[in-house]
Amino acid sequence: MRRIAILADGSFGPFSAKTAVGVLRYSPDTVVAVIDSARAGQTADQVIGSGIGEGVPVVADVAAALEHQPDTLLIGIAPIGGRLPDAWRPGILTAIEHGLTIVSGLHFFLGDDPELAQAATAHNATIWDVRRPPDALAQRIREGTPHRAGSHTVYFCGTDCDVGKMTASFELWREAQRRGLSAGFAATGQTGIVISGAGIPADRFISDFLSGGVEAMTLDFTERYDWVFVEGQGSLTHPAYSAVTLGLVHGCAPDMLILCHQAGRTVVYGYEDTPLLSLAKTREVYEAAAGWLKPAPVVAVALNTYRMPEDEAQAAIAEAERETGLPTSDPVRYGAGALLDALLAHSDLHA
Amino acid sequence: MRRIAILADGSFGPFSAKTAVGVLRYSPDTVVAVIDSARAGQTADQVIGSGIGEGVPVVADVAAALEHQPDTLLIGIAPIGGRLPDAWRPGILTAIEHGLTIVSGLHFFLGDDPELAQAATAHNATIWDVRRPPDALAQRIREGTPHRAGSHTVYFCGTDCDVGKMTASFELWREAQRRGLSAGFAATGQTGIVISGAGIPADRFISDFLSGGVEAMTLDFTERYDWVFVEGQGSLTHPAYSAVTLGLVHGCAPDMLILCHQAGRTVVYGYEDTPLLSLAKTREVYEAAAGWLKPAPVVAVALNTYRMPEDEAQAAIAEAERETGLPTSDPVRYGAGALLDALLAHSDLHA
Repeated sequence: MRRIAILADGSFGPFSAKTAVGVLRYSPDTVVAVIDSARAGQTADQVIGSGIGEGVPVVADVAAALEHQPDTLLIGIAPIGGRLPDAWRPGILTAIEHGLTIVSGLHFFLGDDPELAQAATAHNATIWDVRRPPDALAQRIREGTPHRAGSHTVYFCGTDCDVGKMTASFELWREAQRRGLSAGFAATGQTGIVISGAGIPADRFISDFLSGGVEAMTLDFTERYDWVFVEGQGSLTHPAYSAVTLGLVHGCAPDMLILCHQAGRTVVYGYEDTPLLSLAKTREVYEAAAGWLKPAPVVAVALNTYRMPEDEAQAAIAEAERETGLPTSDPVRYGAGALLDALLAHSDLHA
Repeated sequence: MRRIAILADGSFGPFSAKTAVGVLRYSPDTVVAVIDSARAGQTADQVIGSGIGEGVPVVADVAAALEHQPDTLLIGIAPIGGRLPDAWRPGILTAIEHGLTIVSGLHFFLGDDPELAQAATAHNATIWDVRRPPDALAQRIREGTPHRAGSHTVYFCGTDCDVGKMTASFELWREAQRRGLSAGFAATGQTGIVISGAGIPADRFISDFLSGGVEAMTLDFTERYDWVFVEGQGSLTHPAYSAVTLGLVHGCAPDMLILCHQAGRTVVYGYEDTPLLSLAKTREVYEAAAGWLKPAPVVAVALNTYRMPEDEAQAAIAEAERETGLPTSDPVRYGAGALLDALLAHSDLHA
C-alpha cells in the first residue's frame, strides 16, 4: 500500500485531472494529499464532487504535502503532448530529495531527464515512468494467436477520448469479481496501470509493434482469467488517435465490445468542429473494423451521465437504448450489473 | 550523388531484399556493388531479373565491395522485427573504419549501438538511421488542418504488405513529373526515404503521434506540390500492422485512393492461414475508414503482375477491372499513364 501525494498544480478538477481523479476513485492505495496551489485549503471532494477523495487535503506545494508523509509522488495530470511543465521541476526534485518514488504517466520520461535521474540516484529514489513500454513487449510483432478456449475478451470502445472507457471497464471488472467470476482488468493507459499495477501503455508503443504488444498482454490475461476487460483508448473516428484504437481492437481480438459514450457530448473533445458520430453509426464502425480480423458485436452501451440530474440521466439512457436496441446503463450511477448481464447472456447464447 | 554498396548478405533476391531492389531500381545514386556471399560472382540483374541492377557486381563481403569505391554502405534488407544480425557487425565496422556513411532502415538504431557509434566518431563516419523519426515531428498531435485548396493528396492503399505500394506511388510521381505537373512523392517507409531523401518512417512513430507526424509531412508537401503521392504501408486488414495503416490514412487525409494488389496473392504474406479480402471488399474497407474523417474514393487499381507471363497479366488486369469497375493497370509493366488519367479525371469531375 502506497501513500500517494498527487501533483496536479493548477489543473486539479473533475475534467482536467483524469489520472488524479482515477486514482482517488479507484486506487487501493492511500492518497494523502493533492497538490494544487490554486485550490489549496479545500479537500479533494470539494473540488471533484461525487464524494471522490473525501477529506483528502489539497495543499499548495510539495513541501506542504510532505507533512502528510507520502512515500510516492504521482504526476496526476496528462497534458496533451505529455511534456513536463517547467514549474513542476523544483517540486519533483524536492520529492526525490525526500526519497519519494516518482510515478509519471507523461510521454516525456522523467527517468531520462539527466537532472532528475541524477537526483534519484543520489537519494536512492525510484522513478517509474508508467508510459515506458516494457522491454519484453516493446518490439513484438502480432502473430494472430487464438485465445484460450473458454476465455472471453471484452474491449471497451468509445465515441471519443475521455468518455469513461477506463471507468466502465474497471466497474465491470469489480462487478465480475463480486459475482465470483474469474476476471482481469487489462489496463492500456497510464491511469489504469497506476491503479492496477499491470497493463501496457498502448499509446506509447511504436506503431509497428502496438498490436503485437496488446496481443501479448491479452494472451497473458486470457491464460489467467475467464473474463478479460480490456480498457479502450481514443476512438476509431478520432482525428488524432485512431491508430492507437485500431491497434488495440486488432491486438486484443475481442469476442465482444461495450460501447462507451458521455451523454450529451456532440463534438470531439478538443476538436470542436468535428461532430461525433451517432451511437448507432459508431457501433457499425467498431463492428466493421473488428470484423476485418475477427467478428465482435457490441453487446451493451456504457453511458457516462456524470453530473446529470437523475431525470436527464434516465432519459439519456432510454434514448441510447432506443437508438441502439442494446442494454444501456451508467455503471457508476447504477452499478455494472446490467452490463455484465448483457455480456453473460451473449456468451451463453454463443457458447 | 552517392556511391552505394548494399549489404544484403544471404538474402539478396527479388522478394527478400525489398530495400535493395527499391534502391537498385529507383535511386538516382549509383550502386557500385551488392554484398551477398551466397551469390558472389553474379550481377544484380542476374539475381533479381527484369534488368534491375544491370552489371552491378555481387561481391562476397564488405572488403570486396570497397574495391568499387563506395562512399555509403546501405543495409539493404528489412527483416521482420528489425534486429541487426550479429554476422553483419564486422562488415559494418570495416565500412565505418573506411569512413563510409552507414544508412540503415532497421528498427534497431545503429547509432545507438555503443560499439558502432564509437567507431563512427573515431573514423568521422556518419550513421543515418532512416527509421528514426525526426525530432520536430516525433511528438506532434494531429490537428485536422485542411490542405491547401487546389492540392490533391493520393494515398496508395494495399491489400497486404509488399504488394507494390511504394513502386506504384513512385511510378505515378514520375509520370506526373513527365507530364509537367507539380508533384511530390511523400515516402513513409525506409526504402522510399532512402531513394527520395525525404519522408517519414511511419511505422516507427509512437502510436499517439503517428497521424500527427503524417499530417505535418502531408501539409508540407501540399504547400509545395499540387499532386502529393503518399506511399502506403501495410493494410487496414493486416493481422499485425493495421494501426500503422489507419494512422497513415487519417494522417494524410487523402482526397483519392489507389488500391494496390499483387495479382495472384490470396493469403496475407507471412500469415498463411489468413485469407486476403477481395479487391471489392478491400475497397469498401478503405473508403469506409477514410470516410470516418474525410471521404476519399478509390479511383483506380494498381495491379502488380511481376513475373507473370503477358497473357496472365492481361487476364488479371481485366478480372480486377471487372470486379471493381475501376481503371486497372500495372504501372511497372505498362507505365502509370492510365492510373494518372484516372486521378485527373476524378479531380476534374469534382473540381
